[in-house]
Parts: sequence; C-alpha cells; structure tokens
Amino acid sequence: MSELPPSPLAPTTFPDLPPVGGVQLATFAAGLRYQNRADLMLAVLDPGTTVAGTFTSSLCPSAPVDWCRRHISSGRARAVVCNSGNANAFTGKAGATSAELTAVTIAQELSLKPEEVLLASTGVIGETLANDALAASLGPLRRNLRDSAPESFEAAANAIRTTDTFAKGASRTTEIGSHTVTIVGIAKGSGMIAPDMATMLSFLFTDAAIDAKVLQSMLTTSVNQSYNRITVDSDTSTSDTTLLFATGTCGVPPIQDLASSEAHQFQEALDAVNLDLAHQIVRDGEGATKFVEVVVTGAESNNAAEIIAFSIANSPLVKTAIAAEDANWGRIVMAVGKAGQRADRDRLDIWIGPEQCAKGGVVAPGYSEAAATEHLRQSEIRLGVDVGISSGLANGRATVWTCDLTHGYIDINAGYRS
Amino acid sequence: MSELPPSPLAPTTFPDLPPVGGVQLATFAAGLRYQNRADLMLAVLDPGTTVAGTFTSSLCPSAPVDWCRRHISSGRARAVVCNSGNANAFTGKAGATSAELTAVTIAQELSLKPEEVLLASTGVIGETLANDALAASLGPLRRNLRDSAPESFEAAANAIRTTDTFAKGASRTTEIGSHTVTIVGIAKGSGMIAPDMATMLSFLFTDAAIDAKVLQSMLTTSVNQSYNRITVDSDTSTSDTTLLFATGTCGVPPIQDLASSEAHQFQEALDAVNLDLAHQIVRDGEGATKFVEVVVTGAESNNAAEIIAFSIANSPLVKTAIAAEDANWGRIVMAVGKAGQRADRDRLDIWIGPEQCAKGGVVAPGYSEAAATEHLRQSEIRLGVDVGISSGLANGRATVWTCDLTHGYIDINAGYRS
Repeated sequence: MSELPPSPLAPTTFPDLPPVGGVQLATFAAGLRYQNRADLMLAVLDPGTTVAGTFTSSLCPSAPVDWCRRHISSGRARAVVCNSGNANAFTGKAGATSAELTAVTIAQELSLKPEEVLLASTGVIGETLANDALAASLGPLRRNLRDSAPESFEAAANAIRTTDTFAKGASRTTEIGSHTVTIVGIAKGSGMIAPDMATMLSFLFTDAAIDAKVLQSMLTTSVNQSYNRITVDSDTSTSDTTLLFATGTCGVPPIQDLASSEAHQFQEALDAVNLDLAHQIVRDGEGATKFVEVVVTGAESNNAAEIIAFSIANSPLVKTAIAAEDANWGRIVMAVGKAGQRADRDRLDIWIGPEQCAKGGVVAPGYSEAAATEHLRQSEIRLGVDVGISSGLANGRATVWTCDLTHGYIDINAGYRS
Repeated sequence: MSELPPSPLAPTTFPDLPPVGGVQLATFAAGLRYQNRADLMLAVLDPGTTVAGTFTSSLCPSAPVDWCRRHISSGRARAVVCNSGNANAFTGKAGATSAELTAVTIAQELSLKPEEVLLASTGVIGETLANDALAASLGPLRRNLRDSAPESFEAAANAIRTTDTFAKGASRTTEIGSHTVTIVGIAKGSGMIAPDMATMLSFLFTDAAIDAKVLQSMLTTSVNQSYNRITVDSDTSTSDTTLLFATGTCGVPPIQDLASSEAHQFQEALDAVNLDLAHQIVRDGEGATKFVEVVVTGAESNNAAEIIAFSIANSPLVKTAIAAEDANWGRIVMAVGKAGQRADRDRLDIWIGPEQCAKGGVVAPGYSEAAATEHLRQSEIRLGVDVGISSGLANGRATVWTCDLTHGYIDINAGYRS
C-alpha cells in the first residue's frame, strides 16, 4: 500500500526513548509484503527475564496468538519476533507451521528453546506467510541485533507498522529505593481498534525485576484502563497482543508482592506508558481529525458507565457530527438511549467541552450552540454525560477515547490490501 | 436540508397501493421544519378498529413513543398523527405538552377522545416543537382527509420522510374464505437503522378484523423478522414506531385465534409487507450503493447466528470492503471472531455470492478472487458464513440485511440539521 501522510493528530516527533538494560533490538526488511522498509522486528531479552501478556478476545485468533498463549504461562521468555504486513490469521495448519518455523529458527540462531520465543504478526488475514523468505530473513535479522537505544526503539516501532501513519513509543522512569526503573513501550495500531485489544500490538520493556505472576496482574490491570478503553471503528482484530518483559537489570530488588508500595509505584508508571500509547493509537485512527474523550458519570456502576461511553464513542452518527463540528447533541442522547444501561432521560446532563447542552433532560438554560461549536473546532474534544442514576455513593463513571469518522476512514479502508 | 438524489438502490416507482376500507388519509405542509413539502400525516380509522404497536428499545424514547405506550394497551385507536422534521425527543415536559396538544386538538377536530389518537414524530432530537404552528395546522390537515387510495398512500409516505431519498410503500392481498384481505404499509427510515426498531416509522393498515391481542402478537413476530433484522449504521433512534391498524371492513370473520389457519395466512402476508418495507429501508441506507444479505448458519442457536450476522453487517471494515468491491474475506473472519459467540475457527466456511472463499478454516481450494470480485460488482450482495458449530439437528441460522459504507454516509451525516 502507498504511504499515507501522518495523521494531523500525530505528535511532532518520535519520543527519545531511553535504553533498557537487558534488551537488544533488531529490524530487517524481508519484503514479505512491503517493499523498501523493515517488516521484521526482533527483541532479545537477558536470561532471567519474566514476561506477561494479554491477547485478543477474538474467537478466531491468529497462529502467533495461539503460540503465545501456549507458552506464556511459564512466565519466562527470551525473545519476541514480529512481522508486519501479514497477520498469519485464518491460515489453518499452514499458519501454525509458519509460527513454529519462526520460533524454531530464531531459537537456533540464539541458542534458545523455541518455547522461549514469543511471536506476533499483523496485517492481512487469510494469506499464508512465505515461509522460505521468512526463514531466510531470520539470520540477517538476528545479525542486526544491538543494545536498545533511542534509535533502535524508533526503528522497531517503525518495523511493526501497517496502516499506521506514525511510529508510536512512550517511556516513563520511576525511582524505586535508590534505583531508577525504566519502562519503554512501542506500539502499532490505527484501524480495527476497539475494546478487548483490537488490532494493536504493544511491546513493553522494563529493567525492573518482577515476579511473573505479579507482572501479569499489573499488565492486565493496565491494559483494561488503556488499550481496552479506546475505539476507532468498533472492530476487533484477530491478532492483538501486548507483551511486557521485565529484565531485572537495574538492580532493584525483585517486586514480588502486588500490594507493596514498589508495585504501586511501578503500576503507576506502567499505566502512564500504556495510556500514552493507547492515546497515540487513537490519534492515528484511520482518517481521524479529532481526538475525542468521552466521560460518563452518574451510572449504575463503572461497568454500566463504560458500556454507555462506548455506545457514544462507537456511534457513527456521533462521530460524523464531530467530524462536521456540528453540536448535534441529540445524537449523544440517541447513543445513551441505545446502550441498554439504566439512564434517567429526565435527569440527563450533557456537555460539549465546557458548554452544557442539556440539563435535566432538556436543553440547558442559556445553552450556546456557538460555544459548543467553538469547542468542536478544536482538535481535542471532550464529551461529558451524566446519566442521572447516581445516588449517594453510587456514581459509576468511565472514560474512553475515540476519534471522529471522516472520509479519510472510507478512503483508507476501501483501499487496504492494495 | 437539501433534497438528496434517490438512492441507486431505490425501486423505479412507488408501488400502486390498493385502497384499504375504513382508512382515510391526509397530509399538510405545516412548515415545522421543511419548506414546500408536506410534513404532517393523518390517518383516521373507522370505529371498531383494533391496533397493535412496537416501539424503540431506546431508554430515552421520544414523547410520542411515551404517549403511544400509554394508550395502545386498550387495543383500540381511531387516528394517528405523524410529523416529520422534529422528533419531539429529549424535550422534557415541553415535549409531553406538544404531544398531548396534538392528540387533544385532533381529537376535537374528529370528535374523538385524545387517547384514541396515536402519535409519531421523526427528525431532529432536542428541539421543542412550535406548538402554535402545529396546532394551527391540525384543522387544515383534518380537512384534507380523503379515503385511502394509491395517491393518498403515496402522499402519506412522502409526508413522513426525513433523510429518505424515496417514499416507501408495500402491499399484499390474501384470500381468506371468500374475502380478499388487503394489507398496506408505508414506512420511513434511512440512517440510524439498527435492530430494535432503529430510526424508522412504519404504518400498516388492513381491512381484516383481528382481535387486538392476536394482532399484537402477529405484529411482534413480524417486526422481529423484518425491521429488527436490518442495520444501516448500528445506531438506534429514540422514535421508532410501528403501528398496525385493522379496520375489519372487508367482511372476513374476526381472527381471534393465533393458531388458526386464517391467522397463519394473515401472518404470512403481513410478514411479506414488513420484509418488503424493511428491505426498502436498507436500500435507502444513507450513502448505500449495495444491498447486502448476510446469512449465517451452523451456529449454536438462532440467537447466536443473529449476533454473528449483525457483527458482520455492522462492521465498518466489512462494509467499506464491500463498497470498494474488495473480496477481503479476512474482515469477515474478524467480524465472526469479535462476535463473542461460539465459532470453530478451523471449520469456518465463507462465501461471497456463489464463490466459496474459505473452507474448513483456510482459503478454499480453487478459490477465485476474480469470481468473488465479480459478485461484489453487482448491487445485490450475498455473504454466507457457516461457523462450524452445528452438529446433528442443532443448526442455528439467521439472515440480516445491510448496505455498504461509503463516502455518501459521511456526506449526509456530516450535513444533517442544516
């Protein structure tokens, strides 16, 4: 496919990602689908690295997802290989064979066991991988390995792109005792993004030492508050994968208790990295021109609030109204109404940015459509909805993020595969 | 708003709808929102008419829906008034006042009780109706009443349009004993169409005599197989209403038993009218260039099949691929996977028209992408999916209908309200 111009919501530059001890990276242009760009990424982790992962909820997962699910329960991994351009999904036994071939070949290159190698693939569904070309590329890929550094993270973030218009990376550091703990993440994703880990890959690396079970718990929590709170088009891919590797090279004593202050500190930094990456994915939503935050309060429960928030964020009518900078808040009422969760029509409050459109189930006194429209002219939009059910301490709330729906989405998705 | 050209999927002409005894119709241009066109429709039914209705599942229903729900339980009605351009939804007490004013005024004009008058409104949400203009128009509207006839049905179908690009009507006759029973329906709907009676209004008239409880049961069955099986954009309106009036003027003995052969015969004709109207609504889907039938078989239950079928029919990625005539069946796999219903990835079969793309979880032997693309070039598309769960007698199946997702959808929905 042809290269798209960067999203108007893209950050101006790729962030300067600090090295993470115990992480080596490599990329290679195997020409599996794309020409003249790297399409393979390899990360190799020091011995003793623990790993956690979360995967697509799709019932038709890709072969690499099957492979990862089978092997991640050990809590240990030494490498991950990712290819872009072909998802190796819905490829039956041939897909499983390609996955195993990749793991076995890289394991041989690195003197590892195949089950220590995790896999990810992203791209077109239903086409088998060119095994010969793939296998022949893994040696050169391995020979490109170097210690992680700002430029190798950026190269890796570029190698995993498909329809992404910009490479995505984020990092945080946190001081635990006398040690600086670093977390770095790279991600890809632009369309087919919806809750439950839509089409996205995210690889996270930290130099902290963390027990594998604790690591898994922290990752699951973090994913639920970040990647699972974003939507571009409500579609869910067969390939979504988040992997978090903890190499333990920074010298901090191992975190083994989820309730410890060290664990809380790490969780906070991990959440910040994941939320940053999740927002970047929305900013690269196919055809996006507006970044939209939807905040729902006053619901029966947090879960009810989340369902209502996604009903708004996934509504094509809401998303086209935002694209048109049209303060058509009636479409928000529609989306609340169809969500199927308790809402009190006659106590509904709605805000577009700072402007309150509806109060107590009717247009708000003094509502200025001009003011709401002015907010919609910005590129960062906030929709607030209180559904009027809260009483006393019960006040279910949720925040989700999405983008607008534009001609660009149609252009891109009526053209992919070419 | 400006008049849109007729959908390329529109029928060439409005059907010739036969008169229905006991039904009088009127239209009037009240100028409530639209200029130079009728925006009010009145139907008056003979004494003794029974009525059944189904309404939106939205939890923020419009004032007219509230009114109908309150009064339809009597099983009797003598009139229905519909305005287009303003949905009278999310208008609080003012909306309830407008609804009551309409019913009271028309009741006075016709010497009826207000509760014998049903109401429907369609259009913009969140704006109050101009009560003075509305009330002043109801007298002239009533004075336009005439017996139902092909031209008055067509005028009525036009008066209830909002973004519809063509008027929708359908009829069937069936011989019960020595009597000809006629069923005529008119409908409106184009966007915001999804299961549970999305943004659509449908008014059905028959000259059969049918017990109100039996009538309600037949209508509910019929709606579930027609309007609740179509989707344009997955959005659900606050106003959806189907009303079925049985005047009993044709002389056939009253149908009082749902299990009788007369009831079955009527049900069949009613289903045909509703399916015809439902298909017309999809054909008027905003921006639609293709009519798409999605057939799912081999599911755990009919309900599971329906959820999977809607997952496919609502997927923006599937719908944009169809618009692009791109045989990207991987997106169908994606939609099956995200539906959350049991499916056997390794036994999945997929057809695009007559061409089998996938068999047993991989690309089908001899699959011709050219043949699949050829099918997609037509304007009537059929997608078939067998999800591979069926065993023995268990073979859940469902058919739903949708349209493609094009630039036209964005154009229309980024412009509505103007």
